[in-house]
Amino acid sequence: MTSGTRRRMGVQQRREQLIAVALELFSHRSPEDVSIDEIAEAAGISRPLVYHYFPGKHSLYEAAVERAARELASRFEEPPEGPLGARLLRVMRRFFDFVDEHGPGFSALMRGGPAVGTSSTSAVIEEVRHAAYRHILYHLEIERPAPRVELLVRSWVSHAETTALLWLDGRTVPRADLELQLVHDFGALAAVGAAHDAELAGLMGRLIAAEPPDGPFSELFTRLAALFPPPAP
Amino acid sequence: MTSGTRRRMGVQQRREQLIAVALELFSHRSPEDVSIDEIAEAAGISRPLVYHYFPGKHSLYEAAVERAARELASRFEEPPEGPLGARLLRVMRRFFDFVDEHGPGFSALMRGGPAVGTSSTSAVIEEVRHAAYRHILYHLEIERPAPRVELLVRSWVSHAETTALLWLDGRTVPRADLELQLVHDFGALAAVGAAHDAELAGLMGRLIAAEPPDGPFSELFTRLAALFPPPAP
Repeated sequence: MTSGTRRRMGVQQRREQLIAVALELFSHRSPEDVSIDEIAEAAGISRPLVYHYFPGKHSLYEAAVERAARELASRFEEPPEGPLGARLLRVMRRFFDFVDEHGPGFSALMRGGPAVGTSSTSAVIEEVRHAAYRHILYHLEIERPAPRVELLVRSWVSHAETTALLWLDGRTVPRADLELQLVHDFGALAAVGAAHDAELAGLMGRLIAAEPPDGPFSELFTRLAALFPPPAP
Repeated sequence: MTSGTRRRMGVQQRREQLIAVALELFSHRSPEDVSIDEIAEAAGISRPLVYHYFPGKHSLYEAAVERAARELASRFEEPPEGPLGARLLRVMRRFFDFVDEHGPGFSALMRGGPAVGTSSTSAVIEEVRHAAYRHILYHLEIERPAPRVELLVRSWVSHAETTALLWLDGRTVPRADLELQLVHDFGALAAVGAAHDAELAGLMGRLIAAEPPDGPFSELFTRLAALFPPPAP
């Protein structure tokens, strides 16, 4: 594009650009450490012009949080094809892609730092958690979850979030290991749930029957059987 | 005590009383719904007198959060006696006692509502999580946890917190079931960790060897073996 034909960006386009610039900066440093001046510089516009599109630092942060939240929720979308273990593994890969790309922004969002921790961002995060929960239920083919099923799925979503936050603190365990481990954790927590609840036991029975021998759940079974051989009768 | 001999409360004593009154009110309703007027009335003093002891609503809330956090952290203290499963079960019972007693106050604290969600209360909550983590490591007899062990213990603490919050929303599952299930969840998550990491496998081996046949971990084994009989060789 030559300068002669260069057109001014429209309002919406400029807002989108500023959000993208902000998210890029938040992927390297925590939002509270990023100033409007830096966002203006990275976008190649003046500070007053940023305020023309967003009335204040906080409204730009909120818009960035909403964009990131929509993006994060979309990572839990997965076509209903193939066995559950493989689906969950693909979802965990996309989830860690997001965590990896957004780094400090993800931490600040989930830990509620001063720049982003407001009641409106808390509501946005709760929506992401709820979206993740609904996606998993969909793959379990459950429309009206019993309390134990709700507890299992919601607490696993929260467990994935905690694991990702801990991973970001130093990245001492390879992320691919954690993606697989989280799928195994789902299987393990579901098994415990099944040991406590007949409905979950039925669900687990169906899921296991549909798992192929090379799927992540079968792999966990094999690993555990080697570690903890059944006691002699 | 007769009115004739009634002495004025000292400053520290009055502050403690106001904190206790606030926590009692927060055990029935969310802190954001409790006014200073109500706290003053419940304490039997005037509203201006409350402000004499606490400069504002927020400082009283902060003091209440700190008191509750210390109390919550203390529930994770457990003498190093007997097998691990039984210790964890006692810890979970005391944890749910706290959750049960504090109800809406616990929810607001952990979800960071407008009245309590500030960076200073976030720091207090992080301290509680860290104290719980240290207590569990102590029972595992680990001083310098490897990354996988840290991940296991921290994510289990977070899992217990999430489970308790979900339990408070409707209390649809008996709490005693969840106390036991959380101990089982610890065993299951540790088993998955062991399937991924040799150090955790060694730790699990030691723990299982020390478990009695009537302990919670043995019970989980029995339940799971009945649900998922090992495949014929």
